[in-house]
This record gives sequence, structure tokens and C-alpha cells, in this order.
Amino acid sequence: MKLPGQEESDVSSASKNVPTGELDSGPGSGLSPDGPLDTDSRELEVSKDPLLFIQLNELLGWPHAPEWKETGRWVLFEEKLEVGAGRWSAPHVPTVALPSLQKLRNLLAKGLVLLDCPALSLQELAEQVTRVESLSPELRGKLKALLLQRPQHLIQTPCTSSCWGSAHLREASQEEEVPLKEQHQNPLRQKFPPGAEAGAVLAGQLGFLEQPLGVFVRLRDPVVLGPLIEVPLPSRFFCLLLGPPTLGRGYHEMGRAVAILLSDLQFQWRVRRASSLHDLLAALDAFLEEVTVLPPGRWDPTARIPPPKCLPSERKRIPSQLRVAKGPFVRRRTPAEDRHGRRQHAANPELQRTGRLFGGLVQDVRRKASWYLSDFLDALHPQCVSSVLYIYLATVTNAITFGGLLGEATDGAQGVLESFLGTAVTGAAFCLTAGQPLTILSSTGPVLVFERLLFSFSRDHSLDYLPFRLWVGIWVAIFCLVLVATEASVLVRYFTRFTEEGFCALISLIFIYDAVGKMLTLTHAYPIQRPGSPAYGCLCQYPDPGGNESQWTSTNPKDRDDILSMDLGLVNASLLPPPECAQRGGHPRGPGCHTVPDIAFFSILLFLTSFLFAMALKHVKTSRFFPSVVRKMLGDFSSVLAILLGCGLDAFLGLATPKLMVPREFKPTLPGRGWLVSPFGANPWWLSVAAALPALLLSILIFMDQQITGVILNRAEYRLRKGAGFHLDLFCVAVLMLLTSALGLPWYVSATVISLAHMDSLRRESRACAPGETPSFLGIREQRLSGLAVFILTGISIFLAPILKFIPMPLLYGIFLYMGVTAISSIQFTKRVQLLLIPAKHQPDLLFLRHVPLSRVHLFTAIQLACLGLLWIIKSTPAAIIFPIMLLGLVGVRKALEWVFSPQELLWLDEPMPEKERSIPEKGMEPEYSFSGSDSEDSELMYQPKAPEINISVN
Amino acid sequence: MKLPGQEESDVSSASKNVPTGELDSGPGSGLSPDGPLDTDSRELEVSKDPLLFIQLNELLGWPHAPEWKETGRWVLFEEKLEVGAGRWSAPHVPTVALPSLQKLRNLLAKGLVLLDCPALSLQELAEQVTRVESLSPELRGKLKALLLQRPQHLIQTPCTSSCWGSAHLREASQEEEVPLKEQHQNPLRQKFPPGAEAGAVLAGQLGFLEQPLGVFVRLRDPVVLGPLIEVPLPSRFFCLLLGPPTLGRGYHEMGRAVAILLSDLQFQWRVRRASSLHDLLAALDAFLEEVTVLPPGRWDPTARIPPPKCLPSERKRIPSQLRVAKGPFVRRRTPAEDRHGRRQHAANPELQRTGRLFGGLVQDVRRKASWYLSDFLDALHPQCVSSVLYIYLATVTNAITFGGLLGEATDGAQGVLESFLGTAVTGAAFCLTAGQPLTILSSTGPVLVFERLLFSFSRDHSLDYLPFRLWVGIWVAIFCLVLVATEASVLVRYFTRFTEEGFCALISLIFIYDAVGKMLTLTHAYPIQRPGSPAYGCLCQYPDPGGNESQWTSTNPKDRDDILSMDLGLVNASLLPPPECAQRGGHPRGPGCHTVPDIAFFSILLFLTSFLFAMALKHVKTSRFFPSVVRKMLGDFSSVLAILLGCGLDAFLGLATPKLMVPREFKPTLPGRGWLVSPFGANPWWLSVAAALPALLLSILIFMDQQITGVILNRAEYRLRKGAGFHLDLFCVAVLMLLTSALGLPWYVSATVISLAHMDSLRRESRACAPGETPSFLGIREQRLSGLAVFILTGISIFLAPILKFIPMPLLYGIFLYMGVTAISSIQFTKRVQLLLIPAKHQPDLLFLRHVPLSRVHLFTAIQLACLGLLWIIKSTPAAIIFPIMLLGLVGVRKALEWVFSPQELLWLDEPMPEKERSIPEKGMEPEYSFSGSDSEDSELMYQPKAPEINISVN
Repeated sequence: MKLPGQEESDVSSASKNVPTGELDSGPGSGLSPDGPLDTDSRELEVSKDPLLFIQLNELLGWPHAPEWKETGRWVLFEEKLEVGAGRWSAPHVPTVALPSLQKLRNLLAKGLVLLDCPALSLQELAEQVTRVESLSPELRGKLKALLLQRPQHLIQTPCTSSCWGSAHLREASQEEEVPLKEQHQNPLRQKFPPGAEAGAVLAGQLGFLEQPLGVFVRLRDPVVLGPLIEVPLPSRFFCLLLGPPTLGRGYHEMGRAVAILLSDLQFQWRVRRASSLHDLLAALDAFLEEVTVLPPGRWDPTARIPPPKCLPSERKRIPSQLRVAKGPFVRRRTPAEDRHGRRQHAANPELQRTGRLFGGLVQDVRRKASWYLSDFLDALHPQCVSSVLYIYLATVTNAITFGGLLGEATDGAQGVLESFLGTAVTGAAFCLTAGQPLTILSSTGPVLVFERLLFSFSRDHSLDYLPFRLWVGIWVAIFCLVLVATEASVLVRYFTRFTEEGFCALISLIFIYDAVGKMLTLTHAYPIQRPGSPAYGCLCQYPDPGGNESQWTSTNPKDRDDILSMDLGLVNASLLPPPECAQRGGHPRGPGCHTVPDIAFFSILLFLTSFLFAMALKHVKTSRFFPSVVRKMLGDFSSVLAILLGCGLDAFLGLATPKLMVPREFKPTLPGRGWLVSPFGANPWWLSVAAALPALLLSILIFMDQQITGVILNRAEYRLRKGAGFHLDLFCVAVLMLLTSALGLPWYVSATVISLAHMDSLRRESRACAPGETPSFLGIREQRLSGLAVFILTGISIFLAPILKFIPMPLLYGIFLYMGVTAISSIQFTKRVQLLLIPAKHQPDLLFLRHVPLSRVHLFTAIQLACLGLLWIIKSTPAAIIFPIMLLGLVGVRKALEWVFSPQELLWLDEPMPEKERSIPEKGMEPEYSFSGSDSEDSELMYQPKAPEINISVN
Repeated sequence: MKLPGQEESDVSSASKNVPTGELDSGPGSGLSPDGPLDTDSRELEVSKDPLLFIQLNELLGWPHAPEWKETGRWVLFEEKLEVGAGRWSAPHVPTVALPSLQKLRNLLAKGLVLLDCPALSLQELAEQVTRVESLSPELRGKLKALLLQRPQHLIQTPCTSSCWGSAHLREASQEEEVPLKEQHQNPLRQKFPPGAEAGAVLAGQLGFLEQPLGVFVRLRDPVVLGPLIEVPLPSRFFCLLLGPPTLGRGYHEMGRAVAILLSDLQFQWRVRRASSLHDLLAALDAFLEEVTVLPPGRWDPTARIPPPKCLPSERKRIPSQLRVAKGPFVRRRTPAEDRHGRRQHAANPELQRTGRLFGGLVQDVRRKASWYLSDFLDALHPQCVSSVLYIYLATVTNAITFGGLLGEATDGAQGVLESFLGTAVTGAAFCLTAGQPLTILSSTGPVLVFERLLFSFSRDHSLDYLPFRLWVGIWVAIFCLVLVATEASVLVRYFTRFTEEGFCALISLIFIYDAVGKMLTLTHAYPIQRPGSPAYGCLCQYPDPGGNESQWTSTNPKDRDDILSMDLGLVNASLLPPPECAQRGGHPRGPGCHTVPDIAFFSILLFLTSFLFAMALKHVKTSRFFPSVVRKMLGDFSSVLAILLGCGLDAFLGLATPKLMVPREFKPTLPGRGWLVSPFGANPWWLSVAAALPALLLSILIFMDQQITGVILNRAEYRLRKGAGFHLDLFCVAVLMLLTSALGLPWYVSATVISLAHMDSLRRESRACAPGETPSFLGIREQRLSGLAVFILTGISIFLAPILKFIPMPLLYGIFLYMGVTAISSIQFTKRVQLLLIPAKHQPDLLFLRHVPLSRVHLFTAIQLACLGLLWIIKSTPAAIIFPIMLLGLVGVRKALEWVFSPQELLWLDEPMPEKERSIPEKGMEPEYSFSGSDSEDSELMYQPKAPEINISVN
């Protein structure tokens, strides 16, 4: 049984079932048996039939100046020539009127069908196809001459960046057999895989014909038919549809019908193997059996339907009788299968308990060791270089932001320098040893929140923070080792989306709350001066009357305004600004001395700048503007660019905004401590034991954060070949915990978003693709080198630290807010909260809304909201530090939900918990499905709006 | 020949060719002849065939507990029951597999077809349809019992605001013949026009049948078939499709196929008139002739296509032979016709020259006089009340914004009070007398720009502004009267989109530039205090030492901080803030005394708040959130709400931001002048003659502004019945010009945007509409009362003026920026400028891009940009005041473009100039069209993305 579950994630990564890809197949080679149809392997199932490019040449200008003009082309989708504009239309789903298909069928039934025609050139082919009884020899000659006439092609030269559209129509000159230079230079050619073939469709009105002429040819050996096709591909199929002008545009439409038929994989498969006219017509009839009909009056036949994001599975199309016989087969796994695999971890061998102490760890090490060499060899690809640059910038931005925030939260116990150092050391170590080397470590949101609580706890109880923290770290390492030993990672299966979303939502809300809160705190530090408020005016007073006066007057001859150094009688006072006053030995006096005007509002402006700019840049990525390279760059580096813009603005105005604190030399941010934290400091000895209590809480948090990320990264949809290593990952985190605690560096856990970005930058995709087709996903370049390079670069960047002191803090708060908003927008929970505000009839066509009553959806959302509210209340009390336990409590709440919701409802709104997985089918789900047709629903999944993956960890 | 021209405008107002509307027809009454097909009248052409509601009841649960359940319904589009969710799907275009239609045809061909069945109840009907030979009496009985079983309907109770989805499935109880309470309360019922009929389709698997059973019944007299249909409509058609379970979901699909057929107007028309099985099958075949086919593999058959914005014209579908015979006919004009009519003004009788002095004016008066009484009677509709409220708020916002800006631009020669007074007086007068009473007068952007230039000119030459302005006004009135006398308004035809867009773009850019410029000026008035800048510190010094000292100390015992009144030796000085210092007789001394901190940045924040908030609220209107009433309210009142929010923020912080200047009593803003402007003042007498020169420029501007607006308001697509009055409108403007100049009030011209909003709020739309169908536009409530009420309210609002002084100026600048950005975003020119940044393959499928090469489109844009640049340069020189002449020069540039671009290209990018209109067809356009098929392109128009009307005037 297929488990629906999380439709967004399915859509975002669902693969396409399209015939191209990294095909490397010879023309017409044998076909595979239907075995692969039922395997569930992750390998691609590749058809050996070559790709077919179909071109429609239309006869125009009859009777004055007949000429052939390419007016349409197909691989998967249709491109239409916009004659007036001299450009190709956007690829769209081809539609055709039913009568055109029927007329075509009649014409072919009566016409000439040559299968395995031995012609080796256009000349020979023209000879063959004009041998029609109904034609007089004179007409045959005229027709042949017409066929050999060189067609007009619109060849669009590639425009790399500006795209000022330089397209040119080649004028027809003389007949030529050799492919032309233009044909070879056609940029379309590079898109086709080797072995691709062409099909030429020639259609039009021809005055001298008395009755319609239909010829369908399959060449025995595909040959390049001179300039017939715009790309010098060998042609396999040739179709001629000409006739008297009575039918008007009918020939054009019939030509389109042939082209659409040939672009259909099933039809193509059958026609390649047809041995008679009967087979050809049978293939056409089989096509008609499968078409969908749009009623007239509800649909404009000329509307162009954009290519769907996902194509329906070819596998599904195969009727049962065909499946037994040899039929064209699936290229790769369908989205439905992917969806099935999405939660495969429940049955994942990596998450099976061995029952031995450290059994999972040993297995992980064994599994990963076999790949270790390839983990470096696989990195030798230019893609890894751009990946390193991208992830490096993201990592540095993270290190700065979190370093700055940690420094503030812990009064400098950690800072930017520690953040850089810790990121570099732990990241590199993790990349070299971890089970999932694509993971990027980061001081993530939950741990940051916990550390802030821990610090305020230790400050409230006058503890020496770093030694206390060291013991917490030691205990966490111990607990984590216990978790590794007992193979606790298999419990990950109990974390359903309900838990993940609760986790993510709470942390995101804390981010948003903190960012706004910090801005408000700034307005206290730099108060706004209202009219009538006492904070007005400041005077510089010198300690001893008479003494310094003459000196003062002499040092400032005329270079400043007179008023500044005016003598106020016997008292030496001036209106010098406080810093200069202090420099000259005076005392600033007055309520206005400690206020710095304009800072509060300027900080708010900077905060808004970085937030709004980062949001806007992120949206550029999905806009139509700019070439895709620029768009991707702007989107990927949105935070960096937003910070740079804000810094520029700040530097331009030169105001004394609060800046990031960076030590001047390479030493810990906290003054007076060395790099090694002393084990006790000023704390009593028993605190090292008591630290076990907060450590237990932190262990829960780290376990949840680390393993939820691990599950997301190792999802089946990413098609990782080298397997996961949950136990090994946790082991590494535990060891690094010890290291960072001892050195007083931030604590590090796997970060979901940045790790996903890392994986995404290493996607292997099919290069050759038909117009309108999105490239298909082939896998990830799994290796350890790109991560390693990122962290080495981060390590080197420590020496860049001095320039970081120009970054105003409000900018970082803005980025912080951006992270929170982005994270919370990406979860389904937010979508469901929005549903509360959307009237039923405007609600988007979400899959769960099709299957769960709205009131139940709202109830589920309300329960989640209540849980979140409870967590928030706990977080606001002195008991805040126990929030990791409460997060774990979400698992219990989810369990209790089974009493409130039916298994079907939970299946759509959440996902099944492991034990239930097998029992659901018996629990009466099938009856429901048997009615609404699970088959038909399956594919509807693919039309859900694309949404990002769940970002469980805010980093 | 159809003139394409402006695709955006067409789409925004294109009407739907749908069968509902304000139909008031009895069932099955006679049909109209095909005459209306060829008329081009603006009246609706209404079919007399009643609306048909089709419901599919499916037999589920066989063999355990067979029951009928409504699983689909159709009027125009399909709604599917989401069984799990217990809700209706969103309406979508119905698609069906071709084999289902063919199987249905076979089943009906062999089945029982009863046309004009006399059954009068469900009982009788069941009796009739079970009389099938192949059934044994026993089976007939079972089948009959089954048919009488009460079906389950999902009746959604209307949820007005919160939509917590209270839907309930009625349990089947016992057989009842009378319609149930639920059926009567069904909210769907209100949607149907009187006389609507129903069609019931019953389909499903029935185990005891040995072969499929197909029955199609047309009832002679439609009767309510008990609880069969969810709405108690009389049923006209009844179709039964049952059979053994071999076909699986085949019956469901066949049932859908029948429903889709019946929901097709042409099929319905034929079946209503069918007299035999042969006719029925012929109708089905005719349907098949017209269907569009979606190939498998490129399209998922389960995907739901949302209803298109415009339906294809029913008229187009009629094959030529049918057009001669009696066929179903068009309901109303097609978008293509509308488009044709869009530029009808070229042949508009109102714009035909009479050749007599004041001939046009006389005709206008004569035409409008006949409607004058109805102009008041037609206002008696509640819709007018809400229109008044909406337009009143918009008018007041305008009056405040423009009043504030005019006050600033003219140093108080005009102000908010003048703005209110002028708006009320001229608006009301115009509504009572004008040719187009729906017009709202406003001191629009161009005139504001001119007045600013005029003021700075008179200031530079030390002229007495208001008397000078009076003479300008007198001359303008004279020139306008000359224009009225010579019927110059007919020249409006030469203003093509090129001119309109140049006009709009320049004014919008001036708005944007001014808004940003004013904000920067504010930062000069309230400088930002950088560290080290001298503007720091302020001291309060008392004039005579010793004298006031004791008094000072005694008045302030302990209520203020000590430091504030500290004695600085012999000099009496304190750190009191300047206002208090002055109050106490001291002199504030020091560079910091004149700076008000925080104002600059807070003003920028307010500016951004009002701009961004207004933009965001405007977008709420098109979002999914909130019920449509709330959404419309938020969108319509976006500026008001943004101003209110900003005022609240400003009041909360209580900073001394610059506020709107409002006189305390009812007197002109400029101190010392009366309400009547003296004719000469301090100016020399000859200035009254010289004023003719600027008046000439202003006349050009007013003529362009007024008439372009007039053309837009009187477009054929608004279907105004009472005609336009271009000459009368200009006459009224001239008279009001005299009045406002004499009283020193702002000058008023018709404002496009707000007038369009006024018309839009008075749209008459069809109320009854099928699910998924957008209401169709019937016309505008043309009357004079709503405008009059708006201006009376505005007049009353003068007494609200005192509270306007709480509005900070930066808020108004923000609204100003919002107006500029909104106006410039709405023109096609902006879209074309954006195209420069969009790579060719991502460009939207705009109609002109299909027909004009991209390089030519870019050339056209570049020429427009160059013109705009030139205008901007002129605007920035001392010769700025002549910019109206340059605007008029755009007409010449447009004329010159005919040498650069072909007529076809100009047709797509602009529109033809009047003289060319007739010659184009001869100029070789047809050949181009004959190829690309103008017929097919026509309807593609309708699929252009919806865009707002051109907003030529920024007000």
C-alpha cells in the first residue's frame, strides 16, 4: 500500500518520467523485457528507443510562390512558430481537434505506407513517395521538385545574457543535399543525446492535386535528409500530407496530429515495430483509447497549456494486456513510488536495531568505510567548486550571525571568533568522519536557545559559566554515547511530521520574537527624544576654573565654531560633544550627554532593510527576470547581499550604530580566559555532577535536532547511494561536543537547511532535455571533499574577522528575522493556519483538503496551535530550560491524537507512526479508497503547488 | 476587420459568453431566429432555453448496502464530491476519456431512449424506465425499488464569514416524493434563475444485471423528481447507466460523460429538439466533432483545469450550415467584438464633427437633456449608497493629499481647505451639468505639476501669484470655449496609446521623483546628527545676570531634575529645552538648539509605512485571504488605512514630525486674502494679457488630460447607454476654471482612476451564476446622484479640517509615491520595459510578442524611453513650463513612427491612427493573417493575463 503523507515534499523532488536523460543508446537497439516494471530499485530504467525530434514543414504561398516553412516542432511538447514575431512559442502541451485525428486515420488508411523504406537520401525518398498511382507522371515530377525544395527554418542563435532576440529566417536558395552550416550550428542540436532521430512531417495545400495524398514512411536506416530538418539528425519517419485546397487548414492540423502521435512514446514504440498498415492504424487507435477530451464551449482549443511540472507515468498508461506483452516501459520511478520511498526509513536497514551494544555504530562504520576512497574521488567535478563557494558564503554568514548573537546572549563568553573557529574545526572533523558527510554542522537555533537559557540560569545563580558549561558538555557526550550504544537512533521513526513541525514552529517563533525583541531593546539603549523629554542638552565642564581656560582657547584658534568654546563666565564650560570633552579633560554634564540621537530609528531602518531585502532577493530566484544564472546567484546569496547593502548604507551615513564585537587579535572574546576552559573555575565541585541535569535536557534537544535532520537528509527521494549513518553521526557529534566544551566554543549539530542546500548544489541532473521539459534528477555527488574545503576556507576566514566589526547588529537581527520567517513559512502547519483565514471556496486544491473534512483539518491545526501555545508559555516561565522535554512530549501528544482522528485523517494530515503502518490496511482504509479511486488520486499528487522541504532546523 | 490593439484592456473587461445572466425565461419557450447573430448591438442576446443543472447520482456500496450518492454536479463546470473531505471540489473544466464517450454512445444506441416521456413523478418515471425487455419482472421490481431509494446529497450550508465548513451528509431514510426541507434550503437554489431545469444522471455497478442498461429520458413536462436532485428543480432529463461490475468505474465515467454532454449548450439545444434516437446520436457525434484532444503522456487526465477567465464564444462554434438553420445562438457580444468596439470612438457619432460653431455642444446638450430625469431616477438602488461611501473616502483622501501638496508647492497660496472647498463645489456642479456625470473631478497630477511650475515662475519674477493665476484661468476658459466652439474634441482620435502612455509615464515619474525628493528635503530640514558633527548641545541663557535667577529657582522647587536648573556660576544658564527656555524669557544658545533629533529617520519610516502598507493592502484584494467583502474593503481603502496607521504610529510616539498645515478657521490658507481674488493685485496691467501664454500651455494640458480621460470613460466596453458628452464636459471644465481661478481654489479636471473606480462601483452584474463562472457584466448605473452625494459629503467634511492637522506630511508623500508607482505599473510600456530584463524563454505569452519580432518590440520601447528622457530633460530645464507642448509633440512622434514600423506592428504595439483605419486592410495585412489564422488568434486574446486599464491620469 502506498502511504501518501507529505504531499509537498513529494512534489518538490518528484522526478519526471521523461524519455531523455543521460541516454547513451544506439538507434533502434533491442528492447528490455518488462521485468523492471515491478522492481522498486532506485536505478533508472532506460528505454533503448532513441529520442525523436519531429518537425512540421508546411507548404505555404501556393499557388504564387510555394515554399516549405517549418511551423512547428515537437520532442515532448509543442513549439509553434510565431510567424509575425519570428520566434518559437513557449513549449506547451499539444492539443488537437478530434476530427483531425480521424481525418488523418482515413487518409493514412487509403494512402501509401512504406515501412522499412530503404531510401538513403532525400532524392531517393522523394522518388519513392511520389510513386502513387493516382498521380500522373507530370504531377509526380512537379511534386518531387517541390519536395526537394529547400525549406525555411527559423534557427534561433543562442543568446546568452541580454537576449535581444537575434533570430533569422533563412531564405530558400537552391536544393542541397548536404546539411547546412546553420543546421550544424543550431543550438538545439546540443540538447539531443547521441543517437537521436528525427521525424519529418510535410503538410499543406497543393492546388494541382485532385485528391488528398497521404504518405507515411519509416526508413529502414535513418538518414540525414539534407536540409529538411533544422537539425542534422538522421530521419527515421517521414510523413507527407498534401491535398487540394478544399480542406483549408485541415492539412496543417493533420500534420500536427501526426507530429503529436509520433511524439507520444507509446505510439512511437508501436510504430517502430509495426509491420503493416494494420499495425499503424492499431497504434493510432490505441492512442485514441487513451486521449482525454476537453469539451467545446468550456475550453478554448487555441489556449496553450503550459507543460505540467510532472508528467504522468508512462508505466501507468500501459494497459494490462500490454504489460504482459512487450511494451514500452517506465524510464524511472514514478512520484508515487518516490512518495512511497519517502518514509521508507521505517523499514530502512540503517534504522533496524541490531540488538548489540554499539551494533549500529559498527555497522555504520563498516558501511561507510567501503565508500571512503570514493568519497574523495567522486569530488573531482567542477560542480563541487561552485558548491564550495556557495556553501562557504552561507556558512560564513551563519558563523557571523550566530557568533554575534551568541556573543550577546552570553555576554561575550562566546563570540564571532569562537564561532568561526568552532565551525571550521568541528565542520572539517565531521566531514572527515561522519556517516553523512554532506551534512554541514552549525550552531543551530534550538541549541542557541538552550545556551541562552543556560547562561541566564548560571548568571542568576552566580556560577562560573564556562566551567559549568564544560561539565554540561561532558555529560552530554556521555549521554550521547549511551544513546549510540543502545542504538536509540532507531526511535527516530516516532518523530512524525507533527513533532517536526512543532519543533520547527517553536524555534522559528523564538527567532522572530527575539529579533523583534532585540530591536525594541535597542530603542531603550538609544532612546527616542520626544519633545519635552528631559534628555536634552549637554554641557562640557572643566574641573578647575581658570586653569585650563587659556590652554583651551589657544588650541582651538578658529577651526571650530565660536559658540563651541564660548566662555560661560567664570565657569569653564563648552558645548563640545562628550567624547571630545572627555578627551580634553572635561566632564560632560547634562541629561543629553548619554543619548545618541537618530540611532534608534536608523537601526530600525537597517533592520527592515536587511529583512526586506533578503526576502525580496529570495523571491528573485523564482521570478522571470534576469538570466537564470544571475537569478540563482541573487537568490542564493540573498542574506550576504542584504548584509552588504546594509553595511554600505551604514558606512555612508557614518552613524554610531551598535556594531558586531570582534576581538582585535586571535584570542577568546571573553577577556582573561585562555583557549582551554578550566574544569572547575570558581564553581563548587558538586556542580560537575549537577550539570548532568541540564545535560540530559540538552541531550534530548541535540538528539532530536541531529536525528530529525539526519532523517530529512537521508530521505529516499535524494537517491543517496552510499547510505546513511545515524549512529556514526551521533557519535561524532558527541565527540565534538567534548572538544567544543573544553575549548569554550559554540556547540554544533547538523543544520537542516544549509545541509539541504549543500546537497542541492551537488545534484546530478540530466543535461539533454527537450524544450519545455525540466531536467530530471539523477542523484547527488556524495563525497567528503566539498564540505572539507568549505570548512578549511571558513578557518582561513578567521583572519578576516577585523573587517567584521563594521557590521551593525541591527542587520544581523534582520537576517535573524528573515531566517525565522522563512523557516516558519515552509511548513505545512503554516499553510493550515492560513486556511483558517481563507474562505472555503478560495482554498487551494491541497490534497489533504480533498480527503479530510475541513472541520477536522481545523481541529488538527487548533491542537497544534494549542501545543505551541503551551510550549511558549513554558518557555516564558522560569522553567524554560525544560523545554526540550516538552518538545519530546509532542511525540506523546501525537500518539494521543490517534484517539481523536481516524487513521485515514492522520495519514493525510501527518503520517503513520511506525507500529500502525501495517495495521492500517486492515483498519478499513481500502473501502474508502476503492470508491474514490486511489489510482486516479495518485497522480493528482503531482499537481500540487511546489513547496519547499520542511525546514526543521533554523540555522 | 477586427482591430486588435490593446489586449490588456480587452481582457480586463471582456464579457463572458455564458448561458446564465438575468434570464427570465420560461421553460422550453420558443427560440429566436438567427438574426441577432449578425447584429453588433450592445444588447444582450438571450437564449430562451432554460439553464440546466445536472447531477450525477452514483450507486455505491453494492452488494452490501447499495445507496445512491451524489458525486458530481455540473452547470457550466464540473464539481466533484471529495468523499473523504465531505466537500465539493472547486469548479473545474470537465475532462473525460474518449472511450467513455464512445462506450456511452454504444450503450445509448442499444438502450432505451424515451423522448417526451409523459411521466409526472419519480414513481411513474421509474415505472417507465424499468420496462426493458432484457429484465425479468423480478429484476424490474428490484431495480424500481432501488431507483426510488432516497439518494444522499451533500448540502453545504452557506458559511458567511468564518467558514469553519459545516457540511452534512443526509442519511438516506425512507422514500419520499415531496422535496425535502434541505432541498429547499439549499443555497445553490438561489443561484439559479427562474425556470431552471435539472438533469439527473444515475450510474453505477449493479450486480444483478447481466448486461449494461442504458436509458435516456427527456420528460415532456419537467417535474420535480422527489429527492432525486439536491435542489428542488423540475427535471427535464433523466439518464440511467447501470451494469454488471465488469466495467468497474466505467459507469461512473459514462455518467460523467452524459453530464458533460448535457452541460454543453449545443448538445443540450439539439437534444431538447431531438425527435429520435438518431437525433440524439447525431448530437453526440456533433459534440465529438468539436472536442479538443489532450494526448496521453503529456497530460495527466486527473489534473483539474481551473475555469478559464473567458469562455470561447458559442457563436464561433456554430458550423456554417447550422448558422443558416436554426441553432443555439450567442448570448452576448464576444470579447472580439468588444475589442472591436473598444476603439469605436473613431466612428463614434459623439466624435463626429458637425461643422457648425458649438454644434457639438448643442448636440451634447440635446442628447443629455433627454436622459436628465432618468439620471436621478436610476440612482434609486442600494448599490449607489455603497458607491457613495467608497468614492467619498477616495475623494477626501485625494483632497487631503493634493491639498497638502499644493499648499507646499505654492507656499500656502492653496491649501487643504481650498482643496476641500474646490472639490466640493466644482465636483457637485460638474455632476449636475456634465456630459458624463460619472466623472469625478480632481486636481490631477498634470495640472498640479503645471501649477507648481507656474508658481515658481511667478515667484522668480516677483509676481503677485493669485491675480496672475486668475488671468491664466480666464484665458484658459476662453481658449477652452474656443476649443468647444470649433469642436476640437474630435481630435481626440489622434491620441493613441503611445501618447496616452507617454503622458501617464511622465506624470508618474514626476510623482515618484517628487515624493522621494521631498523626503530628502526633509532630511535637510531635520539633519541627521552624525558623531562629531557640530550640531550638538544647547544651552538656555538668561539676559540679565542675577535678576531672574532667584525667581527661576523658586518657581521650580523639586519637580525637575536638579541638573536642568543648575547655576553655572555668574551666568544664568540652564539646560532647559528651547521651547521652555523661550517661555521662561531665556535665549537658547548653541548649535544643537535648532536640531530636532530622530525626525528625519522617523519621517522615512512613516513614508515607507504608508507606501508599503498601501501597496500591501492593494494586493490583499487579489489574494485568497478573507471573505471577498473584507478583501475588497481593505483593497479599496488601502490609502485611507495606510494614512490612519501612520497617524496612529505618529501619535503613539508623539514626535514633532512636520504636519499638514490647516487653517484654524474657515478662511483661505494664505493669510490676509479674502475668498475673492483681486483681478490685478500688485501686478502690472499688461500681465493680464501676457498670462495668455502660460494659459495656452495649460489649455493644451487640460484638453489632453480631460479628453483622454473622457475617451477612456466612454469606451464601448462599459456599455454606457446614455452616451458621452465630450464638448459639454470641456465646456463645464472651462466655466469651472473661471470660478476656481476667481476664488483662488485649485484647478479641476476629470480624473481617470477615481472616475473609473466610480463606474466600477456602479457595475450591474448578473446575480445568478453557475459555480466557477464569474458574474457577467451588464452595464453601469448611469446617474448623477451618487457623484452629487459624494461632493456634498466632501463639502460637509470641510468642518473636519481641524483634525487633519494630525496627519504627518511624510505619510502623504508615501501615498504620493504609491500613486506614482501604481500608475506607472499599469501601462503596457512598463511591461515592455520589463521585457528588456526577461530572457526570451521566460517572457510571458503576450499577444504582441506572438506577432511582432522581439527586436522590433524593443525598438518601440527604446523610442518611447527616448521620448520620455527628452521630456524629462525639458522638465528639468528652466523651459519646464512648456512641457504640455512637448506632450502634444508625442502625437507627432507617433505619426513619424509610421515610417519606422509596419502597420501590422503598430497595430499590435499601439493602435492605428484614424486616417489609416480604412487603408490597412488593403495594405497587405490579410496575407499575413490568412496564414496564421486570424480566427484561431482571436480567441487567444482571451487568455492574456488580466491587467488593469490604462491609468492615464494620476490622481
